[in-house]
Amino acid sequence: MTMVSIALLPGDGIGGEVMAATVPVLDTLIQRHRLPLDYRILPWPATEWHRQHGSMMPDDALDQLLGYDALLLGALGDPGPLEQADRYRLPDSISLAPLLALRKSLNLWACERPARYHPGVPCYLSDPRAKELDMLVIRENSEGEYAGQGGRLRAGTEDEVATQLEVFTYAATERLIRHAFERARQRARERRDEKRVRAFTGPEGETRESQVCLITKRNAQAFWGGLYDRVFQQVAKEYADVATHHELVDAAAMKFVQCPWRFDVVVASNLHGDILTDLAAVLAGGLGVAPSANINPADLSVPALFEPTHGSAPDIAGRNLADPRATLFSLALLLQWLGERLGKRLGQRSDATADIKNSNEKSRLFYSAAHQLHETLITDLAAGHPVSGTDAV
Amino acid sequence: MTMVSIALLPGDGIGGEVMAATVPVLDTLIQRHRLPLDYRILPWPATEWHRQHGSMMPDDALDQLLGYDALLLGALGDPGPLEQADRYRLPDSISLAPLLALRKSLNLWACERPARYHPGVPCYLSDPRAKELDMLVIRENSEGEYAGQGGRLRAGTEDEVATQLEVFTYAATERLIRHAFERARQRARERRDEKRVRAFTGPEGETRESQVCLITKRNAQAFWGGLYDRVFQQVAKEYADVATHHELVDAAAMKFVQCPWRFDVVVASNLHGDILTDLAAVLAGGLGVAPSANINPADLSVPALFEPTHGSAPDIAGRNLADPRATLFSLALLLQWLGERLGKRLGQRSDATADIKNSNEKSRLFYSAAHQLHETLITDLAAGHPVSGTDAV
Ligand SMILES: CC(C)[C@H](C(=O)O)[C@@H](O)C(=O)O
Ligand SMILES: CC(C)[C@H](C(=O)O)[C@@H](O)C(=O)O
Repeated sequence: MTMVSIALLPGDGIGGEVMAATVPVLDTLIQRHRLPLDYRILPWPATEWHRQHGSMMPDDALDQLLGYDALLLGALGDPGPLEQADRYRLPDSISLAPLLALRKSLNLWACERPARYHPGVPCYLSDPRAKELDMLVIRENSEGEYAGQGGRLRAGTEDEVATQLEVFTYAATERLIRHAFERARQRARERRDEKRVRAFTGPEGETRESQVCLITKRNAQAFWGGLYDRVFQQVAKEYADVATHHELVDAAAMKFVQCPWRFDVVVASNLHGDILTDLAAVLAGGLGVAPSANINPADLSVPALFEPTHGSAPDIAGRNLADPRATLFSLALLLQWLGERLGKRLGQRSDATADIKNSNEKSRLFYSAAHQLHETLITDLAAGHPVSGTDAV
Repeated sequence: MTMVSIALLPGDGIGGEVMAATVPVLDTLIQRHRLPLDYRILPWPATEWHRQHGSMMPDDALDQLLGYDALLLGALGDPGPLEQADRYRLPDSISLAPLLALRKSLNLWACERPARYHPGVPCYLSDPRAKELDMLVIRENSEGEYAGQGGRLRAGTEDEVATQLEVFTYAATERLIRHAFERARQRARERRDEKRVRAFTGPEGETRESQVCLITKRNAQAFWGGLYDRVFQQVAKEYADVATHHELVDAAAMKFVQCPWRFDVVVASNLHGDILTDLAAVLAGGLGVAPSANINPADLSVPALFEPTHGSAPDIAGRNLADPRATLFSLALLLQWLGERLGKRLGQRSDATADIKNSNEKSRLFYSAAHQLHETLITDLAAGHPVSGTDAV
């Protein structure tokens, strides 16, 4: 059986700690489920690597990463490298947000952040229905407000003008929104299997088992709001089984707090998604348990990047305070994705029967490892004991 | 005594209802406090006016509005006029968001949205400390993400590219941040007078009675993040008595839910401020009690515009469900602002002793009317009875 191979990128700050807690869990899963899985721990991208080599990662980093089937990241980003940056000059986008560079260079255009409340985590809301929270926020990950274009004219003077250009394309919008509808359908199927069907109301009062809610700020940012609106309406026509809804981003933030149980799949731009996923994460118990997946749903050969939603938290790094569960939940997503991918590849190379059988078998192994890890994490949360090392499996 | 004159703009949707509940309260206040105040109710800007005249307001609307000392708006905006707009064409920014047009044309560059929890309103958070919430979000109101620049290239096709240009200038950033520090100082003074001093910690561990928290997304939108950072650091030097803090907008959304009691003054860009003020409003009991002020702190001759933070809510319009209290709280802010303005004008024309005395007296009247309205609203909230008509004073 050919091996699947993944890279573990501890990164910065608490990244090392959460990864150290994750590796033994992965080892146990590999053994127990006989996963045909190899992993390798990479010392980059990281601020430490930057200190030694003058850049966040080696020159051939991208090529190396593309050789893996999937990537698991501990933490990267603010404010390690930022503190070193000279704020009065044009920033180097790689040193400012290496995470964004990774997502973009690997063309992982969708960021999926499931938020589901599990007994045992803090509940910040007073309404008991808040515990029914079960949404998936799908965030645009490749353009929009994060296009990185613009500059600082007359920087440092009293006449400075800073610009930031938001760029939204039909192609990136269409694939994102279509993916959201696909996921909504899939969630409805899974819920049906688990006999916990939900009901959503469409604009004409009809009942649907899933919903996609589009987020824009079309009343103030009309250009891309118009594009998103149009594409949403167009794609929705192909998914008559899915209810649709629209919220302005400010109203969405409010409703996440007032009635989070009303949302199913939420699809948002890069910046809106960034804000709403942090909000959804806190409503699902905090960043300590919030996983995320950066994927390219259209091209399974691109390694997906899984990471906790939290940052590198330099303020608590090295003090053994970091909660590894967001990373463990991300690992569960990774295993699930490997299962999905192996399953989907079947159709693509249906010529060799042995291959199909192999893939089928492998896919099953990864699915069941993902399922067990996820269930164990949830059981442990409910039991109130902290997860560390192999306790998780 | 020369009269102060204000315009009441009911606007759209529930705007008419909340204004209808406000007028008798204003009448009573005028009588009881002998306010030298005239008001006039204007039928525009409004979708209805648009229907009849083809535009949201008359051609000389701006000139007319500039003739008043202050403006009180019921509700405007989404989605009345939006529904009529052809989404496949370049939108007309006036018909899309007349509110933004008003704020911009009147040069009301700061939007102030106080959020304070009062007993009697719904509390969405489970932590009892959430009731200590008492913050003022100051939002940039004239540029940034709402610059309205950009367009839709090849609109309606599969090659469409939509752009939205964010423009931030030193001048607008400096005045905004300076105003935030001024307000922080003022809040500390007021709290000292009321013997409810708060303590904030600066980055060096020092204790301060007030705090300004800057919001950016500098790790992903580095250009304007850099400008905001620089100006913030520079202005902060002049306000050593005020503690400073920075949060990324996503982390801020999270912390508003986790520990809202830690914030004092929050200063944010137009879009970030839009999202965070809706969030703050809900944490302070919902949009039913959230007021806002659009002001030009540098030029007191410009009429400030006060409005509830809520929109025109067409879904509940005409059904007598709208809560007029956000408008009444906004009226309290308006009266307070008139008091402040008359007080501050003293210095500007200190030549005529009679004028000073007059202004002084008038200022006192408005302050005390504002104070009484505000206290009555709070008492009524605590008593749990709904406010309508003259009950409020
Ligand atoms: C580190 C930062 C650039 C990043 C983002 O905004 O995408 C983070 O907040 C996240 O949500 O993954
Ligand atoms: C109506 C809309 C354009 C407006 C805004 O975003 O400024 C509203 O949401 C607000 O917060 O006052």
